[in-house]
Amino acid sequence: MSGYPKKVEFREEGPREGFQIEKTVYPIEQRAELIDRLSETGLRHIQVGSFVSPKYVPQMADTALLFDRINRKEGVNYTALWLNEKGFRQALAARDVHIDARLFFYASDAFARHNNNASAEEMRDRQRDWISVYRDAGHAIEGAYVMAAFGCNMQGEVPPEHVHDLFRHIVAMSEEEEIPVPNLIIADTMGWATPEAVKRMVNAAREIAPSARICMHIHDTRGLGIANLHAALEEGVDLFESSVAGLGGCPFAGHGSTRAAGNVCTEDAVFLCHELGLETGIDLEKLIEAARFAEEILGGTLMGRVMHSGGLNRFRENSTGDRR
Amino acid sequence: MSGYPKKVEFREEGPREGFQIEKTVYPIEQRAELIDRLSETGLRHIQVGSFVSPKYVPQMADTALLFDRINRKEGVNYTALWLNEKGFRQALAARDVHIDARLFFYASDAFARHNNNASAEEMRDRQRDWISVYRDAGHAIEGAYVMAAFGCNMQGEVPPEHVHDLFRHIVAMSEEEEIPVPNLIIADTMGWATPEAVKRMVNAAREIAPSARICMHIHDTRGLGIANLHAALEEGVDLFESSVAGLGGCPFAGHGSTRAAGNVCTEDAVFLCHELGLETGIDLEKLIEAARFAEEILGGTLMGRVMHSGGLNRFRENSTGDRR
Repeated sequence: MSGYPKKVEFREEGPREGFQIEKTVYPIEQRAELIDRLSETGLRHIQVGSFVSPKYVPQMADTALLFDRINRKEGVNYTALWLNEKGFRQALAARDVHIDARLFFYASDAFARHNNNASAEEMRDRQRDWISVYRDAGHAIEGAYVMAAFGCNMQGEVPPEHVHDLFRHIVAMSEEEEIPVPNLIIADTMGWATPEAVKRMVNAAREIAPSARICMHIHDTRGLGIANLHAALEEGVDLFESSVAGLGGCPFAGHGSTRAAGNVCTEDAVFLCHELGLETGIDLEKLIEAARFAEEILGGTLMGRVMHSGGLNRFRENSTGDRR
Repeated sequence: MSGYPKKVEFREEGPREGFQIEKTVYPIEQRAELIDRLSETGLRHIQVGSFVSPKYVPQMADTALLFDRINRKEGVNYTALWLNEKGFRQALAARDVHIDARLFFYASDAFARHNNNASAEEMRDRQRDWISVYRDAGHAIEGAYVMAAFGCNMQGEVPPEHVHDLFRHIVAMSEEEEIPVPNLIIADTMGWATPEAVKRMVNAAREIAPSARICMHIHDTRGLGIANLHAALEEGVDLFESSVAGLGGCPFAGHGSTRAAGNVCTEDAVFLCHELGLETGIDLEKLIEAARFAEEILGGTLMGRVMHSGGLNRFRENSTGDRR
C-alpha cells in the first residue's frame, strides 16, 4: 500500500518565476489579472513577485505596485521573494505581503558562490543573522530551503550525505535558537533528481527531522518532474512549490537553452493528485484557464500538458463505460 | 525493493508519429536523415512510416520510397504500420520492411467505431482473419495491442475488467490458434492512465497471461507520461514504444488542440532509465542530437525536455562533488 497523503497543498510560484526569466517586462495589468485568476482557483499561497535589485532583475522592479494592484481574495496568502535585508524591508513596506520567512541553504558550493559570491558554508552561517532579523520583525521561520539538493550543473554530483548534514545542521540550529524546526524545502533546483533519489532523500529528512513538514520544490528540466513529484507523494509528502503552465525556470542555473523547462507544472501536478483521489482544494478547470491566460500574456506555447489537452471530467460526464 | 528490469528496450515511433500528425509533407531526404541518425543511436526498432490510404494520410504516401532511401544499419529493424490487407501487401512489396505482425484490440467501442466504422467486438473478431493472413505469409504474431486501455475521450471511463477480458480473449485465441501468446501492448492512447492504474494493469496482465512479454505504449497527453513509464518500470516492464522529441500524437484521438502531447518522449525515458542504472543500449547524446534534428525539420519547439536542457554527463565529468 502507498503512503499517499489525503490532502496535498500547492504553493504557486508562477507569477514570479514566469516573468522573472523573460527579458520582456509584461504589463502590470496582465500580471495582476493572472494573480487574480489564480486567486479564484483555490490556491492558498501565491508568490506575486520578488523584491530584488532592479539592476539585475528589471522585470521585478514594480513588485510593490503589483501588490497594490491585485484584488485580494480572503484566505489567500500573497507572498514574495527577497534575497537580502533591503528586499525584506521593501516587502514589509509593501501592501499586505504575507511574510513567509525562509532560510536558504546551499547543497552546492559552486552554486552558492555563483548566486551570492559566498561559499555554501558562509551562506549557511549567515542564516543565523536572518533568524535574528525575522525574530526582531516578529516573524517565525516558516521554511528552510536546501537548494541543489540532488546535483548541480556548476559543481556536478552532490553527495546525499552533504544534504543530510545540512538537515542535521538545521535541526541543531533550531534547537539552539529555541525555534521549531521549520519546513524542510528540498529543492531540485537544476533537475537532477530521480524518483528513487527523491524517496531516499525524503526518508532521510524524516529520520533526521521527524517534526519538520517536508516540502518539495521540483524542476522539470529533464522531464522527470511529475515522476519525481509522484515519488514524493508516495512517501506522504503533502506540500509542493510549483508554477502554473510550468512557467519559469531559474535564469541563473546555467542551462544551455532558455527553452529548458523550469518548475514542475501546477495544473499537471493537480491533475495527477485528483486522478489519484487526493484532495487539493483546487478547481482544475479554473487553473487550466489561468494557465491559458498566462500563455496569452507570454504569446508562446508554454510547457504545461493538461492546459493543452484539458482534464478528463468533460469526458467522464459523457461516459458510456458499460457499452465498452 | 523495486522490480526494475536490468535492461529496457525502446521501439521508436517518432518518424511515423511525428510526420503523420503534421499537415505539411516534409522532404523525404530530411525524414530519411532523421531515420539514419536514429539508426546510429543504438535503437533496434524504428518505425519508418505507414502504408495507409494517401487520401486520409497524404504525409505517408511515400513510405515505400522512404524504405528505399534510408541507409540500413545492421541489427536495426525498420518497421511500418498498416491497418488493412492492402497496406500489408504494400509493406511486403516495399524494400526490406521488418514485418512485426500485430493484432489490434479496442478497449473502447466508441474509439473502434470512430477509427474503423466497426464495433470493438467486430474488430476483435476480425483479428482471427489477420492471424490467417500473417500465417499464410509466414509471419508469427509479434504483438497484440489493447488500445485505449485506460480510458477514452470518445467513450469516457474504460472499466479495467473490460481490458482484462480482452487479455483473456487473447490468451484463449492464442491457444485455439496454437500460437504463443504475443506481446501484450497496453496502450494509453489518449492519456488517461495514472501510475497506480499502470501498476494494477500490468499486474493483471501478468496474472492472466504469464507467458506474454508486456509492452507499454504511453502517451504524455496530460503530463503523466514519464511517471506512468516509471510505474511500469517499477513493475519490471522492459519494453516501451516511444517517440524521439515526443513527436506525434494521434490525429484521430479527439483532443481539443493539436498542441496536445503525443507519445512519451524517447530520450526523456532513456534519460530516466540511465539515471536509475538501467541499461538501454542507447547513446543518449546521439539521441538528443537526433531529437534536435527533428526540431530543425519541423521548425518549432518540440515537446522533449532533455533535448533542450541536455543530459548530466557533461556536468559529472567536471564534478567537484567533494568541495560541497
